Amino acid sequence: MAVYTDIADDDLNNFVADYGIGTVQSYHGIAEGVENSNFLVRTDQGSYILTLYEKRVDPADLPFFLGLMEHLADHGVICPLPLKTRDGTMLRTLCDRPAAMVSFLTGAWPRHIKTIHCAEVGTALARLHKAGANYTRRRANALSLGGWQSLAAATLARADEVQPGLADTIADELDYLAAHWPAALPQGVIHADLFPDNVFFIGEQLSGLIDFYFACNDALAYDLAIAVNAWCFEADGALNVTRARAMVQRYEAERPLSEAEKSAFPLLARGGALRFLLTRLYDWLNHPPGALVTPKNPLEYLAKLRFHQGVRHLSGYGL
Amino acid sequence: MAVYTDIADDDLNNFVADYGIGTVQSYHGIAEGVENSNFLVRTDQGSYILTLYEKRVDPADLPFFLGLMEHLADHGVICPLPLKTRDGTMLRTLCDRPAAMVSFLTGAWPRHIKTIHCAEVGTALARLHKAGANYTRRRANALSLGGWQSLAAATLARADEVQPGLADTIADELDYLAAHWPAALPQGVIHADLFPDNVFFIGEQLSGLIDFYFACNDALAYDLAIAVNAWCFEADGALNVTRARAMVQRYEAERPLSEAEKSAFPLLARGGALRFLLTRLYDWLNHPPGALVTPKNPLEYLAKLRFHQGVRHLSGYGL
Repeated sequence: MAVYTDIADDDLNNFVADYGIGTVQSYHGIAEGVENSNFLVRTDQGSYILTLYEKRVDPADLPFFLGLMEHLADHGVICPLPLKTRDGTMLRTLCDRPAAMVSFLTGAWPRHIKTIHCAEVGTALARLHKAGANYTRRRANALSLGGWQSLAAATLARADEVQPGLADTIADELDYLAAHWPAALPQGVIHADLFPDNVFFIGEQLSGLIDFYFACNDALAYDLAIAVNAWCFEADGALNVTRARAMVQRYEAERPLSEAEKSAFPLLARGGALRFLLTRLYDWLNHPPGALVTPKNPLEYLAKLRFHQGVRHLSGYGL
Repeated sequence: MAVYTDIADDDLNNFVADYGIGTVQSYHGIAEGVENSNFLVRTDQGSYILTLYEKRVDPADLPFFLGLMEHLADHGVICPLPLKTRDGTMLRTLCDRPAAMVSFLTGAWPRHIKTIHCAEVGTALARLHKAGANYTRRRANALSLGGWQSLAAATLARADEVQPGLADTIADELDYLAAHWPAALPQGVIHADLFPDNVFFIGEQLSGLIDFYFACNDALAYDLAIAVNAWCFEADGALNVTRARAMVQRYEAERPLSEAEKSAFPLLARGGALRFLLTRLYDWLNHPPGALVTPKNPLEYLAKLRFHQGVRHLSGYGL
């Protein structure tokens, strides 16, 4: 939750004029997303989200992200549609930063997770995977095994400050995953960060997916494992089997999992837990003291990792 | 720029239902104002701003602020109008905090100040003063002489960390103002914080005033002096005489200054400069290191104070 860069009104007016969407009536920096600066811009023709990409996003990846949102929107996924200027440009520059305007989505992300939300996410994720099948740009997952090893190298020396023994747990898990990580599962475009704050609902109906800035090519079932981690656990670290079953069954109603995906699922869930444990640990150790944005607790994902370490079959998730 | 408190969607839906303004379609925390948590809420009937009042606002002052906005809106000042629930309540509770919904104002605050903005502010401020004349609630200015003395007591020991000699400058100025501060000028409701980020424009036309959470009863001309400080100086600390003349002349076209107000104006401007020097100094010395919100530079107001110390008549402002 931050806006790192303010925009002068004159600069915004000039920027918006190139889209043919009317004139700016108001704009507000919005306190969502920790990576970029986002503004809700209203013109006399509608509402839009303007994003200035800050330093944590590699500009070289932006054509993949923006192209993906356009592709998915064209294929029936409700997600922000990047606007094009009259000459067809999506990726532009504002305030010396890469910048893009996208359509505004109605809805709000659910703060209290219900089973119906998880079910809707299962459907939407499977449809996203099918819609992404013929997207032609590619982006490797920077936060898979190699990325985890880099994050571990940057955090292990201080990991035990957060909890004694955490460094050994991470090192052991990394060794295990490096030896067993499945390479031959069905691949495709994954969202890779489908947490509750990236899914909008109106009432109990899913109204859109946002924030494709971790999207990449990887195992499709890994994306489902990330979503189970993000949506289907109680605050005390226990799996909510009802939610997990609803999410996976609704996913399978759109895209059935192969036997290989099913048997790999506990392993994928361990990898997903380690990925967020490591990035949260890194942010926890490296955030400035007293900063307004409190980093998320890495130990939430240690609890999830321990749960998955005890599961051998998909039946452990209620399926 | 911050949102300190997030709101659960269910809680918001219940809260909004009592106003009869339709159902929530989306809401976003907005990164404006450093004192409170603000949300832009859209329903199927319109857009609104929801504010949760955080600890820097005294709840006992809220009826004054909300009543004032309602009074001013009723008297032709374009400002946020507090909504009432079906049973007539403006001040409510949400997330254990005092909370209110107000109407959404179109426009954006000007990042690049032009003379026409200053002229418009002069007109709007005089009209605000006239519209406030028959507002019956009262609130003393907590940031007048007594408040400055408290702030000085809390900052002087460390003021020279910011600039050597600053403590002496402040102490001397406080002594001077305590001896000379005018008591008999025309009083009324003042905004007391009419900075550029509290004034919206559409193009060059003023479209509304916001943020009445420093409003109080005090000398009307002091409010004009605060606005001259806030709008009419160049980045290098020099007064822009063209802007000051435009603001004061347009103010006087609506509400002529008395001779007493004119002769007191340099003194009022010194007081206004000291007030913001002191609050910024306090925030500067007390903000957590590494916090995302960088406090405003107190020395900007030291430069303004020094300028006003050299002025003896209103002619020093180009008038």
